[in-house]
Amino acid sequence: MQTPQPNDHPSAPPAHVKPPYWAVVFTSLLKENPAPDYHQVGDRLDALALQQPGCLGFRHWRNADRLGVQISYWRDPAAIQAWRADPEHAAAMARHAEFYEWYTVEVVQVERAYGQPSR
Amino acid sequence: MQTPQPNDHPSAPPAHVKPPYWAVVFTSLLKENPAPDYHQVGDRLDALALQQPGCLGFRHWRNADRLGVQISYWRDPAAIQAWRADPEHAAAMARHAEFYEWYTVEVVQVERAYGQPSR
Repeated sequence: MQTPQPNDHPSAPPAHVKPPYWAVVFTSLLKENPAPDYHQVGDRLDALALQQPGCLGFRHWRNADRLGVQISYWRDPAAIQAWRADPEHAAAMARHAEFYEWYTVEVVQVERAYGQPSR
Repeated sequence: MQTPQPNDHPSAPPAHVKPPYWAVVFTSLLKENPAPDYHQVGDRLDALALQQPGCLGFRHWRNADRLGVQISYWRDPAAIQAWRADPEHAAAMARHAEFYEWYTVEVVQVERAYGQPSR
């Protein structure tokens, strides 16, 4: 298995990106039986997001209990707004009830970032 | 299996918590063979964190590729600093190299939060 690196692609802000940058934390509980095109829609949105100006990458996780999180990273709030207004993205968001029991969206500003090995 | 709810315990900010609040996003790649007390240390820190004044809860995920994220939520930056200075927490942080290939810490301010069902 390939070992993920701190700045693999598509993942998270590359090392040269320093705060402030922004992120969107999308937390969701997947339905037990989501609409059958759930994965297809998700893959398509991932590809689209990475083409957006100002998108620095993203990561997602989902636990066995169907609770998941996606963190997408952005250069500035304008980039987040532009992605939010994308027609295909908006169409997918309008279908959230077909996929999720519930979801929360948190728009956050990254104030400090550090780590080991150092970023 | 119990279905996680939007504001289950210990999880995330309860619905009455409105922005601004803060979070710490701890992203890590777990070692293939972390120190044997990894889970014990983690459980202990989780319990300690929840006792900290200003801690609003947390969630964590780890994928099959060993990439994980923990998001802890805090009332204000002072609460984050106080937890960072906790001696037992500091001792565990000094052992990070025994557990993780690498990690990043992002301190973020939550500017907006919304969702369905509404928070």
